[in-house]
Amino acid sequence: MRIEGKSYRSVWIEENKPEVVKIIDQGKLPFSFEIKELTSVEDVYNAISEMAVRGAPAIGVAGAYGMYLATLEITVHTRIHEHLRNAASYLSSARPTAINLSWAVSRVLKNIEECESRTEIISKALKSAQEICEEEIKKCIEIGNYGFEIIKNISLKKNGDSVNILTHCNAGWLACVDYGTATAPVYTARDKGIPVHVWVDETRPRYQGARITCFELENEDIPHTLITDSTGGYLMQKGMVDIVITGSDRVTRCGDCANKTGTYHIALAAKDNNVPFYIAVPSSSFDLNISDGLKEIPIEERSPEEITETEGINGNSINKVRICNYSTRAVNYSFDITPARLITGLITDKGVIKAEENNIVKLFKKNS
Amino acid sequence: MRIEGKSYRSVWIEENKPEVVKIIDQGKLPFSFEIKELTSVEDVYNAISEMAVRGAPAIGVAGAYGMYLATLEITVHTRIHEHLRNAASYLSSARPTAINLSWAVSRVLKNIEECESRTEIISKALKSAQEICEEEIKKCIEIGNYGFEIIKNISLKKNGDSVNILTHCNAGWLACVDYGTATAPVYTARDKGIPVHVWVDETRPRYQGARITCFELENEDIPHTLITDSTGGYLMQKGMVDIVITGSDRVTRCGDCANKTGTYHIALAAKDNNVPFYIAVPSSSFDLNISDGLKEIPIEERSPEEITETEGINGNSINKVRICNYSTRAVNYSFDITPARLITGLITDKGVIKAEENNIVKLFKKNS
Repeated sequence: MRIEGKSYRSVWIEENKPEVVKIIDQGKLPFSFEIKELTSVEDVYNAISEMAVRGAPAIGVAGAYGMYLATLEITVHTRIHEHLRNAASYLSSARPTAINLSWAVSRVLKNIEECESRTEIISKALKSAQEICEEEIKKCIEIGNYGFEIIKNISLKKNGDSVNILTHCNAGWLACVDYGTATAPVYTARDKGIPVHVWVDETRPRYQGARITCFELENEDIPHTLITDSTGGYLMQKGMVDIVITGSDRVTRCGDCANKTGTYHIALAAKDNNVPFYIAVPSSSFDLNISDGLKEIPIEERSPEEITETEGINGNSINKVRICNYSTRAVNYSFDITPARLITGLITDKGVIKAEENNIVKLFKKNS
Repeated sequence: MRIEGKSYRSVWIEENKPEVVKIIDQGKLPFSFEIKELTSVEDVYNAISEMAVRGAPAIGVAGAYGMYLATLEITVHTRIHEHLRNAASYLSSARPTAINLSWAVSRVLKNIEECESRTEIISKALKSAQEICEEEIKKCIEIGNYGFEIIKNISLKKNGDSVNILTHCNAGWLACVDYGTATAPVYTARDKGIPVHVWVDETRPRYQGARITCFELENEDIPHTLITDSTGGYLMQKGMVDIVITGSDRVTRCGDCANKTGTYHIALAAKDNNVPFYIAVPSSSFDLNISDGLKEIPIEERSPEEITETEGINGNSINKVRICNYSTRAVNYSFDITPARLITGLITDKGVIKAEENNIVKLFKKNS
């Protein structure tokens, strides 16, 4: 997608510099546009854990490229497969909630496990990471096509008025290499001439909505309005939201979804107001090994300073301010679980399905 | 209540300086403790609309004192009753959602409407404002007593573990002259030896939770933890909240409650997790003239800059930072409506009742 008219992906490798993984530093957006170069497993681990690269699909792809960088670290003295397994578990531990990270890392590891020579390992790891990257982009395009049908059907009832879509956090192209999950149907609708307007939850504590989603939508000329995370319910009570679409970091086989903290509140409000609530999610975010989201998905607890300290711009300088007394203690659970019963449907790259075990299992059987 | 061990009220008049209304400037807390002197109707209007004094009961009392200041503005040339009616409607318009403001202002106006002399008007206005102030404090004490019983009953099942109370925004003593509404049962429980812990919603966009409630609770030595407004649902899913208590700015005769935006989300989460959800509210916040909160309570829309700009402390200086691009547009609905069906009970100064028309009407008949 575009930043100031120029096309980018959020994670990539350049042909003439294949030993460097490049990412758009999402921690700096929208105040400063910086490209970060990652040249080691540790660089990738840090970029993921500090959220310079963030979003479930994007950290999956970054993790896969991290495995490729691990192969470049192999020397004649390396116990190759021990080194690779260590790198895989190190990378997977950078963030616990999104399944994409460990899924992508394991897939690369599996693909290179039986290779013998360093050269073969390197080339296969690169190929494997690139495949994952391209597949994720295609999945987003498919999500866009399937989700578009839902938006189109809402639009038909609106006599040319904009379809009001509420989203939480950023499940946009920056979170997903390109197109996005939750935003893909929005971009497709825009491309096909359906008027849309997006309500953007600011998404405390890190403001991914205010900082990243608004930045994305502005660069793509999509009309949007920033609101606090607490406002969605009121807008729904007043009939000002036609549909909610968010992403998810992990979907269980029963359809429970982990996503950025606050998604559960929005899902409850949608249910209470008969507003359709969809989760747009690639097949790489499903975890068929677990059923009960609340009991089985690990919820990341991040630093309390993400709540008590807020970064922003003041003139030309980026500053941090503390929003409460220095003595105030906070806790920062970064995700919550939206139970399947609150979800109207899952917009996947394989079609739109109910968030129910039968449908989910069938989806993976059909296509595997 | 106490600030650094010294007792204060949030609004008061000193005997030796009766022409000045003093308030604790809540817009500066917790970074700076400043007392603001109000000496005119306009001062009071500005203090209320800029939220230097805030909280439904406190702005009621400030408005009542504003009417008293209006009487001091009477000169020999004043058309007295026109002047007073103008002052009343001006003060009432400072903020639209809380009923307390127009209720208190009208009550003072009514009490002085039939007075003839300037001296009589002044003395009766002062007496009337002081009565309202003392009554509001008593109401908070009663709310504390009634709400205490609920907390005590929860505590009995917890084998000495702390009762975890979640609150949104600030319905503490600063919002209410003294004791508070939502916090009064907490203070009473503390006084009677029941261990409590408060989850404090930060309350975007103005952070009344992070800034004011945490400040209050710290000064009263009540254990508390700051969370984002989106976290309550997750805590409830995990069994970490025993009860929710918030305030309200206006309660309809059917029990719908307006309160700071986000309260509706919390009420939905409480319902979904069988967590008791109470609204602590003095009789001065009831509006028996209306039934349907969503249709009939005016919801204040405040400046978008409250969302896009965040104030905080950086070392010793108070700074503002912008949390998104300068081009980003936001809307700021400051309140939402919690429908009666989501409310376990109303903790009033006249007892705990169901949020239902019969009970509410009976409560006012019985005591009038």
